[in-house]
Amino acid sequence: MSEATRNIPHETLQRFVEELFAAGGMRPQESAWFAETIIRSNLWGVDSHGIIRVPTYFERIRKGAINCAAHIQVERRAGAVTLVDGDGAAGAVAGRAAMEQAIQDARHHGIGVSGVTNSNHFGAAALYSRLAAEQGMIGISMTNVRPLMAAPGARAAVAGNNPFSVAIPTFCGFPFVLDMSLSVVAGGKLHLAAAKGETIPLDWAVDPEGRPTDDPKKALEGFLLPIGGYKGLGLAYAVDILCGVITGGLFADEMRSMYHDPDVPSLTGHMMLAMDLSAWITPEEMRRRMERYRGFLRSVPLAEGAPPLVFPGEIEAAQEKKRRLEGIPVPLSTLEILSSLKDEYGICAELPS
Amino acid sequence: MSEATRNIPHETLQRFVEELFAAGGMRPQESAWFAETIIRSNLWGVDSHGIIRVPTYFERIRKGAINCAAHIQVERRAGAVTLVDGDGAAGAVAGRAAMEQAIQDARHHGIGVSGVTNSNHFGAAALYSRLAAEQGMIGISMTNVRPLMAAPGARAAVAGNNPFSVAIPTFCGFPFVLDMSLSVVAGGKLHLAAAKGETIPLDWAVDPEGRPTDDPKKALEGFLLPIGGYKGLGLAYAVDILCGVITGGLFADEMRSMYHDPDVPSLTGHMMLAMDLSAWITPEEMRRRMERYRGFLRSVPLAEGAPPLVFPGEIEAAQEKKRRLEGIPVPLSTLEILSSLKDEYGICAELPS
Repeated sequence: MSEATRNIPHETLQRFVEELFAAGGMRPQESAWFAETIIRSNLWGVDSHGIIRVPTYFERIRKGAINCAAHIQVERRAGAVTLVDGDGAAGAVAGRAAMEQAIQDARHHGIGVSGVTNSNHFGAAALYSRLAAEQGMIGISMTNVRPLMAAPGARAAVAGNNPFSVAIPTFCGFPFVLDMSLSVVAGGKLHLAAAKGETIPLDWAVDPEGRPTDDPKKALEGFLLPIGGYKGLGLAYAVDILCGVITGGLFADEMRSMYHDPDVPSLTGHMMLAMDLSAWITPEEMRRRMERYRGFLRSVPLAEGAPPLVFPGEIEAAQEKKRRLEGIPVPLSTLEILSSLKDEYGICAELPS
Repeated sequence: MSEATRNIPHETLQRFVEELFAAGGMRPQESAWFAETIIRSNLWGVDSHGIIRVPTYFERIRKGAINCAAHIQVERRAGAVTLVDGDGAAGAVAGRAAMEQAIQDARHHGIGVSGVTNSNHFGAAALYSRLAAEQGMIGISMTNVRPLMAAPGARAAVAGNNPFSVAIPTFCGFPFVLDMSLSVVAGGKLHLAAAKGETIPLDWAVDPEGRPTDDPKKALEGFLLPIGGYKGLGLAYAVDILCGVITGGLFADEMRSMYHDPDVPSLTGHMMLAMDLSAWITPEEMRRRMERYRGFLRSVPLAEGAPPLVFPGEIEAAQEKKRRLEGIPVPLSTLEILSSLKDEYGICAELPS
């Protein structure tokens, strides 16, 4: 079912997207980082947050929904706590500023936390948690998004699937990285099932009347369901409160979609936490323990025909290794749009066609 | 299906359990708090962590699995980070010490975090997160437990259902309190379905061969499943790493059960985080925002016949109000055991029989 693609070296894509976003008005350093967040997502195999998003992001840059002249400011400081005003910047830029502040505070206090308001869609949550892990810290990143999940029994969206990520240095090969949203599946899985004419499990979504459905078309008119029913729902509320309520930002039904409202900032909120591992344990001891953890998971007996257990972050690490060598598979339809943008905006960076 | 009970005033139960644990060798202040954690759980309606656990806890006290002479010590301090050695104390006692340290650090740094090793089963996770909420702080508490969930595809337990709680002051009536484990259901639901001769949903558990089953008896021989498949599983690993790996404590298959091994400390690890809300927002503004949040959830249209949406913490608040007036329902079988302990240990505190 997946579309035809063409493999393109990640450096080529990086240079192209960087120049494109700069042509849209972004400052060079910021467009370089924004492009990098997209390419990193593809390298990890998280294609839903990769190069296919560039046309949408670029439209938002051009229309001012992403503020290219944003003046990101610290609004409040107390000890290891910082509240940042994103001033409508790209989520990648505001999110990074907040995590870097949290990392800096964690160096002094052992732990640091930053909230951001007036930001935008920040892409894959793991982008930020991994910044902490690269510094030998545990990183936690989260964002609120517009409501798209129904509570059990509701016939309306009551909470976003509010993604979050936890990254933990292991000092052996690759970090532990969990990056998850709180719906059982992403909306894309409903589209895929509908296109294939398949039914879906009853716990994925409800129809517009709030009834469980195995028909992906009815599900697309309805709402996604949270993992674990009230458990995932409660967790979604918690993320929303941390990102949107205590920060003074938007929350619950105030949130907007970057797709439904391409002309205005989504005013998303994020929260970033960094905890310095050196306050707890030496790298050597951490490596020893994480090797034991991974060894335990490898030793677990499997059900007949089941694939080996993977450690969170393992698939991404393998994918990155492969794609650094072989390039990133770009859907031909995306490549076509990028090519026309190249012509329209006179982008010099090479783009295979 | 539920057993016959007798309502007993919470103060009566508090005095009895307090004296019983003291008779087992606990220091007065610690037995008072340990008893209070049990009574509080009942008041909130969390009966699985309430009075029915007293016989098991008392046996562990008598056998030294809970160290009544524990010398809880700070093992490491760095900024707002503290590592505590529980020295085999009751989880209620070690857990509280750690959360109080985190709260104290949050007053200075805006945020504080404490890990505990060599602790024991700490009861309901919300006991500790709520301590922070009572101080106007956001509290997060978590613990690792012995593996009892299978990974999808495994025919062995690979992770505990590692409960955690988030409590957030709302300044309007009752705090937001989420208290959840990471399995779809607790083991008790399998026992209940087996006793009733009912089938169970296929996503609750697997049989000993790792195959999904709707037979609760096969499920009881097998393993529970995590919420959201790999999502809940990854979160369980993260909790285990925070509580057991970075603290230098036990993790994964090293963990023990307080039921399977009644004679030895479970050496459980916990992590407690407190974040001072005053670093973010005023109580007035927080109340206004949380009232709006609750108003939004009350306004959500419901599916036909569905009960109104509840806000996390709402059911517990209503239950507490009711039970403070009407008493705590104690199963007669538990009451019988408590009565015989009263005779055996010469407990003076009153206990209706």
